[in-house]
Amino acid sequence: MIQRLAIVGVGLLGGSVAKAARGGDLAHEIVGVGRDEARLGAALRDGTLDRVTTDLEAGVRDADVVLLALPVLAIEALMPRVWRAAADGVTVTDVGSTKAAIARRADELAAGRALAFVGSHPMAGSEQSGYGVARADLFQGATVIVTPTDRTEPHAVKAVVAFWEAMGARVSALDPETHDAAVAAISHLPHLVAFALVDGVARFEPAALDLAARGFKDTTRIAASDPDVWTEIFLANRAPLAASLEAFRRALAELEQAIARGTAAELRAALARIKAAREAMR
Amino acid sequence: MIQRLAIVGVGLLGGSVAKAARGGDLAHEIVGVGRDEARLGAALRDGTLDRVTTDLEAGVRDADVVLLALPVLAIEALMPRVWRAAADGVTVTDVGSTKAAIARRADELAAGRALAFVGSHPMAGSEQSGYGVARADLFQGATVIVTPTDRTEPHAVKAVVAFWEAMGARVSALDPETHDAAVAAISHLPHLVAFALVDGVARFEPAALDLAARGFKDTTRIAASDPDVWTEIFLANRAPLAASLEAFRRALAELEQAIARGTAAELRAALARIKAAREAMR
Repeated sequence: MIQRLAIVGVGLLGGSVAKAARGGDLAHEIVGVGRDEARLGAALRDGTLDRVTTDLEAGVRDADVVLLALPVLAIEALMPRVWRAAADGVTVTDVGSTKAAIARRADELAAGRALAFVGSHPMAGSEQSGYGVARADLFQGATVIVTPTDRTEPHAVKAVVAFWEAMGARVSALDPETHDAAVAAISHLPHLVAFALVDGVARFEPAALDLAARGFKDTTRIAASDPDVWTEIFLANRAPLAASLEAFRRALAELEQAIARGTAAELRAALARIKAAREAMR
Repeated sequence: MIQRLAIVGVGLLGGSVAKAARGGDLAHEIVGVGRDEARLGAALRDGTLDRVTTDLEAGVRDADVVLLALPVLAIEALMPRVWRAAADGVTVTDVGSTKAAIARRADELAAGRALAFVGSHPMAGSEQSGYGVARADLFQGATVIVTPTDRTEPHAVKAVVAFWEAMGARVSALDPETHDAAVAAISHLPHLVAFALVDGVARFEPAALDLAARGFKDTTRIAASDPDVWTEIFLANRAPLAASLEAFRRALAELEQAIARGTAAELRAALARIKAAREAMR
């Protein structure tokens, strides 16, 4: 049982953690920290939060678990203040979509003060954002990656894994760099490609948008994702993203060349191989 | 009321037309034509078809409506035989995903024998295929594009529009070349990109596939589409597809450059503009 859970950023992910913790009776007191008290009001009124504050230090002081549920750059920026304000014995984690820079910052801060921190990445985002779409069951069956480093204390990993498992998530561990390369490939690159697909059609062939059927809509659903969040992700993870983009370009160029050559057998074999790979991941 | 409806190719689309015609009592007799009589058996046994044959000429003779529900190159290849075998007064249409080549072939054949033909493209495909996934309501609310040319007889357009509207579709007309450019942008390009996304990850970063969340799965759902169908589509529509690919590349390169420059404001503005374009098409 958590005595006091402080959630910094009560949007889709932070709000869903709060709802899951409330619904599952995982925390005695849940405190929401945000920049705008009015926007925190909904979660207070519906009983999800016990208390709200715009004062980060007041919010995290005396919490035994602190969750940083903000975009990646904002998490990095607030970490030194959390390190200074938090109580001894606190467990700190976050929900940032990229992990290497956050893990580096945590290791630097740990040199000054040992705090039980492990980065987390719940793979349960959405193109929607804000507390209005938060759900108590968002993490049920979802994958959460935790990203300990060589310097992370084992008891911190244990506490954070237990925290997410209590929300119904399946937790696995990766080192931060491996995590960032993997999410570049299976999350950041598809987002970038979806943005480019919509932009290419919208700017150069706008009349075609009226005909868009389910295939286009599914493929580009994530192009309606939050511009603030994705600006931060693309910039924070630009090197792994560039590597994934290069792999995509090679695959696309090979298909394009097979089409240009007009060799049906070659093209069909490539598409059959890809279909099998896609079906293997259902 | 159609007296005899001949459906050449009883897969997802042909089978769904048969089921909709049977369910809506739109045709007195429904004949299925295919290469493999055993594979037509399911639709005969469940009462969707009245008769099946592997003899194209026997199947279309005496039909008052003929639907060619095959991949595009197969449709083109069979058209001369349909022109020779069909009765006077027949209405012929198809479900091919690209229309310019089929329309050209129809206009050539019309010089020899005037037949009421208009191309159709029901935007109701799926990554699944075969009669097993055919549904009577597949066309309810779906968009069907008909593609008359200068040489198409108005009564043929009227008959084909009425045919699809009876299945619940919303029908609009485009000339075949405009149609092909539009579907290159909003259907063929997203398919090609989805195939390349899966292939790039599967070949160069296979471990990352285990982490794929909903975003990647939605974006690449269509990469499980039928290799035979998509080989034909990519080859049949390669020139418009190359043009759409060029637009996509420009959009992708601009986003990539904004990321490389690290200018958050510029990147955020581009993503916000794209999000608005995507949301406008919901």
